Amino acid sequence: MSEFARPTLDDVARAAGVSTATVSRCLNSPNQVIPATRQRVMEAVQSLGYTPDFGGRALASRRTNTVGAIIPTMENAIFARGLQSFQEALTKAGKTLLVASSGYDPAREREQMEALISRGADGLLLIGSARPEASIEYLRRRGVPYIGAWNLGGPDGYFVGFDNAAAAAKLTEMVIAKGHQRIAMIGGISDMNDRAAARILGVRQTIAAAGIGDGSLRVIEAPYAFQNGADAFGALMETSPRPTVVMCGNDVLAVGALQKAREMGLRVPQDVSITGFDDIDISAVVDPGLTTVRVPHRRMGEAAAEMLLRLINKETVERQVEIPTAIIERGTLGPPPAA
Amino acid sequence: MSEFARPTLDDVARAAGVSTATVSRCLNSPNQVIPATRQRVMEAVQSLGYTPDFGGRALASRRTNTVGAIIPTMENAIFARGLQSFQEALTKAGKTLLVASSGYDPAREREQMEALISRGADGLLLIGSARPEASIEYLRRRGVPYIGAWNLGGPDGYFVGFDNAAAAAKLTEMVIAKGHQRIAMIGGISDMNDRAAARILGVRQTIAAAGIGDGSLRVIEAPYAFQNGADAFGALMETSPRPTVVMCGNDVLAVGALQKAREMGLRVPQDVSITGFDDIDISAVVDPGLTTVRVPHRRMGEAAAEMLLRLINKETVERQVEIPTAIIERGTLGPPPAA
Repeated sequence: MSEFARPTLDDVARAAGVSTATVSRCLNSPNQVIPATRQRVMEAVQSLGYTPDFGGRALASRRTNTVGAIIPTMENAIFARGLQSFQEALTKAGKTLLVASSGYDPAREREQMEALISRGADGLLLIGSARPEASIEYLRRRGVPYIGAWNLGGPDGYFVGFDNAAAAAKLTEMVIAKGHQRIAMIGGISDMNDRAAARILGVRQTIAAAGIGDGSLRVIEAPYAFQNGADAFGALMETSPRPTVVMCGNDVLAVGALQKAREMGLRVPQDVSITGFDDIDISAVVDPGLTTVRVPHRRMGEAAAEMLLRLINKETVERQVEIPTAIIERGTLGPPPAA
Repeated sequence: MSEFARPTLDDVARAAGVSTATVSRCLNSPNQVIPATRQRVMEAVQSLGYTPDFGGRALASRRTNTVGAIIPTMENAIFARGLQSFQEALTKAGKTLLVASSGYDPAREREQMEALISRGADGLLLIGSARPEASIEYLRRRGVPYIGAWNLGGPDGYFVGFDNAAAAAKLTEMVIAKGHQRIAMIGGISDMNDRAAARILGVRQTIAAAGIGDGSLRVIEAPYAFQNGADAFGALMETSPRPTVVMCGNDVLAVGALQKAREMGLRVPQDVSITGFDDIDISAVVDPGLTTVRVPHRRMGEAAAEMLLRLINKETVERQVEIPTAIIERGTLGPPPAA
């Protein structure tokens, strides 16, 4: 079997030392196979990255005109705008987009890869690059083109994204230039989320390089939801001395923090400054408007579609397309209150 | 062919008066078939509702454990929360959800039905009931269970939703009880959107029944986007006499209207009142908070999953599950300004 060929039923049978009929039975009527055999077969299925598909060889020779995307969540508007423009570009190219969401769970993401690929997806859009090596290996073995977006990745993959750490660093430099010395952060959960991890890193490194305070950064990590932003903000405001600015890993957390500040009777930015990340619609709607990092989601979605279509068509493609970000100054970042 | 059996390649060949090989060629290599024959075959494909699928008979006998959802848009948070809870319930039942979005276009919705069903979806979630009869006919012929959500429908289908017209009527009664006589509305595009149409109807009928003004209602219809709400609000404020309240077909339009009011130096609700619909997260975040209709999205998503799973498993199911809505009073609705 060559490195990129899709494993066949024969490959599984050979690896497990059983007939192809037994492999089929394991997949279709597992109760009719004795457990020891079943386990041997399922291990072979797993290690080879075999996915039973509907059409077998038929699929290998023709395009299904379907593209899959697996995003971490459909809640909030974090991925919505980018995905919408991705879809619009695909539609123009005659492709149908099917979307699955993983709940930030690598095991679910892997299941959804299998679901989409076994249903003949011509290519996949994934978010970021943080996932178990086995998932990547699975995609490679199946020979399905895929790209990562919302971040840039290692030299191995194809990415359309932006430098999360550099953008966070630039915003932190602006925060420091305003005179802030006591900086705290509400970050996303960094485990298996390279975007969240990079944003925290960018803030942390900039503070350390500037020699602010003792160079350390207080970070609370929380899933992206308004209430979590509010709770974490409340907890940070109980520390002494209080931070003069709370930098948030995304706009959802920042808007939650802003609501909590209002509830606590703190004026933003006179009493405390808050920053966001993403520039989703809501950040221009709140009062005062959020100072945040603008991610050109529509542009990223279009560029991702273009890259994935080129890969599917076996055209030459750049490995990394970096989309520039910008800081949007609205009203939530000001100088620290006079001591 | 019985009414609910899936049409086969043979059925298409018979209907078109050609061989099955010719039908295959039309579907796979249309350029190799002369136009007249191709047209006859494609008409048979169309009228029978035949979709080539990957696996043919294999699919008929086994579940793929995939459920499809086709929603009008992934932008904004209108469908996000309901879809998320729908997905969570499906995941517990071992199903993978694949989502497609139609851009409120019935032709696109139909293409996506075909994409999902030909890839073996066990069942489909659709939004509302407004779609061409041919799309419904297509689903019936394929024998794929489907339900509508976000609205209640006719006696023929299965629905988990709420009474959009009744909820809008109730909110209008509250608006009238506050003393408003000059009511205007920014509605969603009502064509092929039964939810938008029902909300407008509910407002219009309540005003007519109360004999307010001349019983007519000024409505501007606009796609759901902040900027459209802002623009429509600006246009309504130029009419004379000005409306004292602008009722919006959803929260996205209402938040846009609220921003425009702020821009124009109008105080809400002292100078003009604004109402929304949906109670998406953002409506509690704006200042003042939106007075709106709360749709229990999470509950609806769960109930939709339960109904669809029962249909897939051929268990008995109620045809309509109505989810109650409630009015949430925040700060944007007050009495009209003194004349």
